[in-house]
Amino acid sequence: MRILVLNPNTTLSATTLMVEAGRAVAAPGTDLVPMTASRGVPYISTRAEAQIGGAIALEMIAEAHAGVDAVIIAAYGDPGLLGARELFDIPVIGISEAAMLTACMLGQRFALVALSTAFNGWYRDCVEMHGLLGRCAGIYGLDRSFASIDDVQDENLEALVTLAGHAIRDQDADSMIFAGAPLAGLARKVRERIPVPIIDPIAAAVKQAEALVALAPRKALMGSFRRPAPKASIGLSASLAARLGQAEV
Amino acid sequence: MRILVLNPNTTLSATTLMVEAGRAVAAPGTDLVPMTASRGVPYISTRAEAQIGGAIALEMIAEAHAGVDAVIIAAYGDPGLLGARELFDIPVIGISEAAMLTACMLGQRFALVALSTAFNGWYRDCVEMHGLLGRCAGIYGLDRSFASIDDVQDENLEALVTLAGHAIRDQDADSMIFAGAPLAGLARKVRERIPVPIIDPIAAAVKQAEALVALAPRKALMGSFRRPAPKASIGLSASLAARLGQAEV
Amino acid sequence: MRILVLNPNTTLSATTLMVEAGRAVAAPGTDLVPMTASRGVPYISTRAEAQIGGAIALEMIAEAHAGVDAVIIAAYGDPGLLGARELFDIPVIGISEAAMLTACMLGQRFALVALSTAFNGWYRDCVEMHGLLGRCAGIYGLDRSFASIDDVQDENLEALVTLAGHAIRDQDADSMIFAGAPLAGLARKVRERIPVPIIDPIAAAVKQAEALVALAPRKALMGSFRRPAPKASIGLSASLAARLGQAEV
Amino acid sequence: MRILVLNPNTTLSATTLMVEAGRAVAAPGTDLVPMTASRGVPYISTRAEAQIGGAIALEMIAEAHAGVDAVIIAAYGDPGLLGARELFDIPVIGISEAAMLTACMLGQRFALVALSTAFNGWYRDCVEMHGLLGRCAGIYGLDRSFASIDDVQDENLEALVTLAGHAIRDQDADSMIFAGAPLAGLARKVRERIPVPIIDPIAAAVKQAEALVALAPRKALMGSFRRPAPKASIGLSASLAARLGQAEV
Amino acid sequence: MRILVLNPNTTLSATTLMVEAGRAVAAPGTDLVPMTASRGVPYISTRAEAQIGGAIALEMIAEAHAGVDAVIIAAYGDPGLLGARELFDIPVIGISEAAMLTACMLGQRFALVALSTAFNGWYRDCVEMHGLLGRCAGIYGLDRSFASIDDVQDENLEALVTLAGHAIRDQDADSMIFAGAPLAGLARKVRERIPVPIIDPIAAAVKQAEALVALAPRKALMGSFRRPAPKASIGLSASLAARLGQAEV
Amino acid sequence: MRILVLNPNTTLSATTLMVEAGRAVAAPGTDLVPMTASRGVPYISTRAEAQIGGAIALEMIAEAHAGVDAVIIAAYGDPGLLGARELFDIPVIGISEAAMLTACMLGQRFALVALSTAFNGWYRDCVEMHGLLGRCAGIYGLDRSFASIDDVQDENLEALVTLAGHAIRDQDADSMIFAGAPLAGLARKVRERIPVPIIDPIAAAVKQAEALVALAPRKALMGSFRRPAPKASIGLSASLAARLGQAEV
Repeated sequence: MRILVLNPNTTLSATTLMVEAGRAVAAPGTDLVPMTASRGVPYISTRAEAQIGGAIALEMIAEAHAGVDAVIIAAYGDPGLLGARELFDIPVIGISEAAMLTACMLGQRFALVALSTAFNGWYRDCVEMHGLLGRCAGIYGLDRSFASIDDVQDENLEALVTLAGHAIRDQDADSMIFAGAPLAGLARKVRERIPVPIIDPIAAAVKQAEALVALAPRKALMGSFRRPAPKASIGLSASLAARLGQAEV
Repeated sequence: MRILVLNPNTTLSATTLMVEAGRAVAAPGTDLVPMTASRGVPYISTRAEAQIGGAIALEMIAEAHAGVDAVIIAAYGDPGLLGARELFDIPVIGISEAAMLTACMLGQRFALVALSTAFNGWYRDCVEMHGLLGRCAGIYGLDRSFASIDDVQDENLEALVTLAGHAIRDQDADSMIFAGAPLAGLARKVRERIPVPIIDPIAAAVKQAEALVALAPRKALMGSFRRPAPKASIGLSASLAARLGQAEV
Repeated sequence: MRILVLNPNTTLSATTLMVEAGRAVAAPGTDLVPMTASRGVPYISTRAEAQIGGAIALEMIAEAHAGVDAVIIAAYGDPGLLGARELFDIPVIGISEAAMLTACMLGQRFALVALSTAFNGWYRDCVEMHGLLGRCAGIYGLDRSFASIDDVQDENLEALVTLAGHAIRDQDADSMIFAGAPLAGLARKVRERIPVPIIDPIAAAVKQAEALVALAPRKALMGSFRRPAPKASIGLSASLAARLGQAEV
Repeated sequence: MRILVLNPNTTLSATTLMVEAGRAVAAPGTDLVPMTASRGVPYISTRAEAQIGGAIALEMIAEAHAGVDAVIIAAYGDPGLLGARELFDIPVIGISEAAMLTACMLGQRFALVALSTAFNGWYRDCVEMHGLLGRCAGIYGLDRSFASIDDVQDENLEALVTLAGHAIRDQDADSMIFAGAPLAGLARKVRERIPVPIIDPIAAAVKQAEALVALAPRKALMGSFRRPAPKASIGLSASLAARLGQAEV
Repeated sequence: MRILVLNPNTTLSATTLMVEAGRAVAAPGTDLVPMTASRGVPYISTRAEAQIGGAIALEMIAEAHAGVDAVIIAAYGDPGLLGARELFDIPVIGISEAAMLTACMLGQRFALVALSTAFNGWYRDCVEMHGLLGRCAGIYGLDRSFASIDDVQDENLEALVTLAGHAIRDQDADSMIFAGAPLAGLARKVRERIPVPIIDPIAAAVKQAEALVALAPRKALMGSFRRPAPKASIGLSASLAARLGQAEV
Repeated sequence: MRILVLNPNTTLSATTLMVEAGRAVAAPGTDLVPMTASRGVPYISTRAEAQIGGAIALEMIAEAHAGVDAVIIAAYGDPGLLGARELFDIPVIGISEAAMLTACMLGQRFALVALSTAFNGWYRDCVEMHGLLGRCAGIYGLDRSFASIDDVQDENLEALVTLAGHAIRDQDADSMIFAGAPLAGLARKVRERIPVPIIDPIAAAVKQAEALVALAPRKALMGSFRRPAPKASIGLSASLAARLGQAEV
């Protein structure tokens, strides 16, 4: 089984970090195929950047979907997810949704903990998009900003553990999600230091992608996720234009 | 006051139709500046196309915002709206949100009526994004598809009036919105034939844009709609890259 | 265009304050017609007083509606609003709803800041009546009481700015509303000291009234906001009795 | 125990009907004290009339509360309820809330059945005001209008039974409420013809009033239902003005 | 009227405490019949124990229902309530639901105060099961654990009063519920020390049981609370097996 | 990996049917261990039976958990799920939650289709318990009853396909779940005849169990799913009593 790990950011090191965290839990025979955006921003952290990055994600899937069995959109906030789910025939999973849905099986309410409060608004939109506000105990962020995402995990490890502990006590959270690509793999490192189950979004997404591939759901022919009617376009990437222009077979 | 009427679709006639419907209600001194996407699809009708069209909308605003006082994103479903609201300092209004918020002042629950049931899913997402599901009595569409959007309004006028009447009776709707750019101006034509107030989205958006410009709210410096921190990017349009890269002044 | 600014309180100075704040944003040609309740309480601040004041508002509109194009119910909490919307044929706007709906176009969640925590319960009911709890980040009030409403704005200016700052940080509010007639005009004074857009309810209401008059929605003949069937009454004001007794034309 | 059965309508026969239905379930020692509005409309059926009737209800309670242990506002839709609950020290119960809360103990979702679809909007507001939309399976009304409320129950009995059966099947309702004062006592007559438990609002209200009197809850000194601060007023009924003007003892 | 006060816990002293608190408000002629579980745990305090205790409650009702007019499930969290409501023909009331529904008539939002934060999750589930999250201002618990439930009320009286005061101020609660069987009767003792009305769950349940018996609702023949179709079973208590196996008469 | 497929019903053939459907999607190395209740009812179909069956599920897990890596509660409606999740240290998954959470990755709203409308109420409770009402497009059942569950799938295949088609069109469902143990494996048979993706609950549960075992979340030490404090009990099964009595290690 080949799963595309699509990073809609341009930061290669984040892709690598996520693929490593994903491989740690992948089943034998699961091949994670990394793909990093060749255009866009280094690290999506706002709604504006997610709008752009989501469109880029569609371009990337249009280019790469033929050779894989499923796609993971590997940026917290799930940029482009619902559109991709319409446009392509294979399963597409967002790391936010995978993390949150998985967390739902470990308790009634999960908390999100992120590197910065700057994500709070966008992440809240994401929880709402998935209809899971009632399962979310709160969204927490550190107060600091960061220039590079490369070392943020180690630099902020202690602060994140402290914040996670606060989040759990503050709102009686039953589980916790470290939100954000640069935190991939952190769950495993601090597993014993946090008193509730922690979900690593990319790890959850790999398992959910494997699950969907095994379940082999058919592509919708009705409802709002059927393939859009073929449509001409101007000025889009060749692959994406081709995909938009194709009738379903 | 100059208001950009930004059509993220490539169909010039739809822009013209909307600008005409907008001018019919604009205040003296309001100048509607039309802008039609030079790339994208002729008519956004799915989540995937909205993802792409929303990113194009950001490019277009980046290019044109300097000379206007407010922006209307003139496609039902509000592609790119929340991101634009973060990234730019002037008011940005979506025609869906303008229609729905205006409808809220004319009764407790509005119905949406559209050209095709194909929009139902995406339009429902849009109602949810604005937190207005409790004010929405239902979303209704005709069962037909259409090749060109140029004549759809006249061709389907009787069917739309009938559907509107059904929607109102079926769910006790207090008001009604004709959703979709190709229906701009229809409300005025059938005003006397539909027994509840009808909102024309572009007309509502022009009045809301005028209202916001007059109220002159400051740009947020805190909260999730403050200007994103400046960020380098690769492969985006020059204007958009410049905007993303600028620090707030 | 003539817009009735109906103060259901008996305090003339509050009417004056609101009309001034309204005129600052009104379009040329908009005439704000002040009307102060001749009976009732000086300042509605509870559900009981709003029940009474709302009935008085209906009497006042019955008396004055013939000569105006729209009505603003100029008391936070919107006393009498939904009833007035049924009973009269011209647009009726509440300053709370105008403020909240306008705020919805400036960010995802607004905070309310008021002079006293005594309003919290009633204001929360008002947010719920408009179906906007999901868009409301919180309701905040000062801890003090006040004898006269004439000087409260200046006396409490610093405390209100501080409370607003707290509200914004505490709940990540994207915008803010100064709730309560005695705070009319305050938004303009402290615009630069508060880091998110502020809505002045009366100012928003003037612009929304202008918008609705321009859009000229028809009066509902169906749904729950159609004109009530004519009905005899006893002991009501002559104008209100006449209005209740009239069949729709 | 003396319970005021306050009919905010001017129709004496409706008061009589309700008092009779109430006495059928009252405990020994419970004295139902009827009071019919001396001003207002014959039968409140819209939001506008409820606004007026609710203010009249406050006048009536101000006049009569001294001699009773609890008050029932005996009009479906609960006009004036929340205000009365603030302003007076004894329990005040609405027949809608009593019916709905009682129904909650007989199944997960109740249906409302009324004489006319004209009530749908206002009754829906009432369900929302009580936060019970999630427990409400639907609101149903006959399609007919009626001139007098005196004979409506018998004239429409068969139609109401049929509609009730439809409501139950259509939405899997677990229980049913005949909504509206003119339907008082109907539940008892058709008990065996409707396959789910039926609540008669006035009967439920009498039992809830007895319950609250027995439980003897204290009057709130904090929270939003504490007694409003004393306030001068102009042009209100003497009793109501006196009550508004009094400090809590 | 005979009302079964069914304690699904094995602690006899808790039954006694609740029956005493219930008798203090019961009407003349109401006979409270105590029944304490002969198997199970001393004090249900988790979802797991409620699952077990709820099944035991069904056994107990199967054994005892013939001689009583209504049943109160006297454990906070209402174990077994909805199942009992299906399976038996007489009214079944939970003390949590009785407390919360009664509180709804005393203000818009109630707070829960319990002996331990350990109950928070389960109690929140219970509020959700009853669809009352929108009416709940918060759930508060002391931080201590306790070995026996016999003396907890007196030992923690001061701490509970302090916590109640905090809950009321923290979330503007309009009323308060002392949740948990060991707190039965506490409301009466501290009535004057807490500034909002307090509901004692067992007392509320006795009054609600009396109300339902007087209203004499019929058993559902349709909807989801009709009697389950008769079914064979293995290894259940004789009474419960008999009840499950019986066809409705 | 060993996963307990726990059927809380006494019908062995249903266990077999589910294990077969599960094995069809299980990963190499996953061993499904069937366990059928030795006491209880043949097929849980009401809240009452779920209360009993959920307690029996806890007994069964207490007996069998030591030798497995995860538990699937294999009855639609998830009897005993949340309690089991507290009491045991390994992942416990319900087939309803697994189906619904998996469906969330295939579209915005799923429909449930079951053998009988008799399940509607209980299944709706289950959707609410998981906080997923906003993702549920509707719950549909056939109108027929059935004596044995052995042949129901084949006998009702055409009727179920027809009902599924109706459900999808009626509410614009994006995906569909065949709810109920006797329908295990049906999804695969009719995959090509239903125009949206279908989830088979037991198949989804097997994949979710594999996912959770691979992710290896820690057992909560805080929050509402930590292990309950040890507690003495009377008259419970030896294994369950032992588990309840044990302190966490």
